[in-house]
Amino acid sequence: MTGIAGLWAVIPAGGSGTRLWPISRRHSPKFLHDLTGSGQSLLRATWDRLQPLVEDRILVVTGVAHEEAVRRQLPMLGYDAVIGEPSPRDSMPAIGLAAAILERRDPEAVLGSFAADHVITEPENFRRAVAEAVVLARRGELVTIGIEPTEPATGFGYIRLGGRLDVVGAPSAHRVDEFVEKPDLQTATRYVECGEYRWNAGMFVVGATTLLELLAQNHPEMVDHLRIIAGDPLRMRDLWPSLQKIAIDHAVAEPAAAAGRVAVVPASLGWDDVGDFASVTRLVGVSDDLPGITAIGPADDIISIDSTATVASSGRLVALIGVEDLVVIDTQDALLITRPERAQEVKRVVEVLTAQGRIELT
Amino acid sequence: MTGIAGLWAVIPAGGSGTRLWPISRRHSPKFLHDLTGSGQSLLRATWDRLQPLVEDRILVVTGVAHEEAVRRQLPMLGYDAVIGEPSPRDSMPAIGLAAAILERRDPEAVLGSFAADHVITEPENFRRAVAEAVVLARRGELVTIGIEPTEPATGFGYIRLGGRLDVVGAPSAHRVDEFVEKPDLQTATRYVECGEYRWNAGMFVVGATTLLELLAQNHPEMVDHLRIIAGDPLRMRDLWPSLQKIAIDHAVAEPAAAAGRVAVVPASLGWDDVGDFASVTRLVGVSDDLPGITAIGPADDIISIDSTATVASSGRLVALIGVEDLVVIDTQDALLITRPERAQEVKRVVEVLTAQGRIELT
Repeated sequence: MTGIAGLWAVIPAGGSGTRLWPISRRHSPKFLHDLTGSGQSLLRATWDRLQPLVEDRILVVTGVAHEEAVRRQLPMLGYDAVIGEPSPRDSMPAIGLAAAILERRDPEAVLGSFAADHVITEPENFRRAVAEAVVLARRGELVTIGIEPTEPATGFGYIRLGGRLDVVGAPSAHRVDEFVEKPDLQTATRYVECGEYRWNAGMFVVGATTLLELLAQNHPEMVDHLRIIAGDPLRMRDLWPSLQKIAIDHAVAEPAAAAGRVAVVPASLGWDDVGDFASVTRLVGVSDDLPGITAIGPADDIISIDSTATVASSGRLVALIGVEDLVVIDTQDALLITRPERAQEVKRVVEVLTAQGRIELT
Repeated sequence: MTGIAGLWAVIPAGGSGTRLWPISRRHSPKFLHDLTGSGQSLLRATWDRLQPLVEDRILVVTGVAHEEAVRRQLPMLGYDAVIGEPSPRDSMPAIGLAAAILERRDPEAVLGSFAADHVITEPENFRRAVAEAVVLARRGELVTIGIEPTEPATGFGYIRLGGRLDVVGAPSAHRVDEFVEKPDLQTATRYVECGEYRWNAGMFVVGATTLLELLAQNHPEMVDHLRIIAGDPLRMRDLWPSLQKIAIDHAVAEPAAAAGRVAVVPASLGWDDVGDFASVTRLVGVSDDLPGITAIGPADDIISIDSTATVASSGRLVALIGVEDLVVIDTQDALLITRPERAQEVKRVVEVLTAQGRIELT
């Protein structure tokens, strides 16, 4: 396996993951954890998925606070492969800086940006979709991968497909008519039924220079600053804080879609954003040994009598008797008990703790 | 307050309390814990209740493994006031040995035996009932205190009242017709409705020598051995293991009742045997600060969003979101989650752990 020539993977490893508290913490966010029982962290699983496509052409952009943990989990990365952001500025500055660094290394570089904390269970489909996306990116397109929706999810944005493109090497490609916001259930149901919408998983494949050109249309100063930092990393300290905090979707993808500059490769990836413990429950599945129990991690420390639950134990024994449909997340200093349908509200606990000044628990 | 002359309190502090796991453990049983949020252990609360009645005339009979903990919780007890049983032999040998020790100290001694791990919320009623019982005991009766039932409980044995006794100083007293086993719900309902039954709380007031005489009718050898041990504590080691493991109810109370030798003083004591976490939930009551939450111990470490639960935290934060009617007992090495109506089954966890050989958790 030789990878896709000229493709660089960019992994923005950020986000707080407060809906996955108390496993995910400020100082140890979601991507550093094994939330699916795979035996490796989401970040490491992301690397494993990308490495065959790009060999050693990988950049991870993460907060300076997480740089050491990222290097520990990915010891094969060279020093230059991890970029530390002094402060969180959302996805555009992170991916934009990676683009500015890459265009200096290789003016023809195509970058594929893939979150550090998502799951893909169909890696072959992923590889095929990325290969098509690279063909389109070489023609100057901003390309996204549109996930075949498996349910009328209200937690994701959607991509409305436009006309089919007729490009050799990218047989699945469509124009993107529009990125649309998270819909309500009724709208989502319509989206899924009509077949013209895909989930927006925030995956972008684009020439490094193309991305910066698109960004320059609305944020020329940001592009200048990113190129200065790429040329002289010592300027990070003074220029980074001035960059606008903005997502790549708003800064580039939506305006480019309106201008007819965005293509989409639809794909069935078995994708999940591991957004909350309901998602984790689906991904992990019920234990063979413990009927009704979904164990995040080892199940040795769980005793279940007539119970159904998703359980993460931290080495303490967890005994359940006659409880149904719970989520029980036990850590050294905090225990969460909720239900899958309330999983989105977990971030409220982090808000309460922050308001109480107990940030050591967040 | 001078106490009731000649009355000795005997506190059998035994029992494993496995229905209150993981707070109650083999090495730290129920009576050593504050399960009601009173700020003191059940044992200490028992001492507090009895001390005004008997001053320093108290004997605690407990397993040798718990002797040190008992002395630590009751430092005011003299060395001779704590009797260590080399092995558990149920209540008859424990109370019988106390009787044999007491008759040597005071041939007229009346003993009142009261469990170390029950709750009484009406101490004045308790004092009055004991005073009546002592009057009857001095006349040679074996006296029990019959608790006014407040619900058709199926977890207790019942006492069927016989004719009213006509004794000066014991105006409430009745003969006991019969001790009856734990009934089913229908039977219990009938018992409560007809008004002729009281709960058997296992409280006995009796002359020390009278008790041993009653015991000698069916277990003469046990009485001999108990008197030998009382005279020479060094004989404990060889004689104690030979004693029959039997409850005072079967060894003495039931046969004596059949012979018309048992009296009962009915009383409303606000009594509870603190038998399981449903009972604890009733006793502790809902927190003022946290709607819907019954906190066993401090509530500072509990965050509740739309939840109802009984929660014991061990210093770890406990966050609940959208859960109802749970019992959450968190300790350093074990976490229990159940529902009040399943509280009786908690002992099954201890059985599973024992079967798994994980006795360090029991």
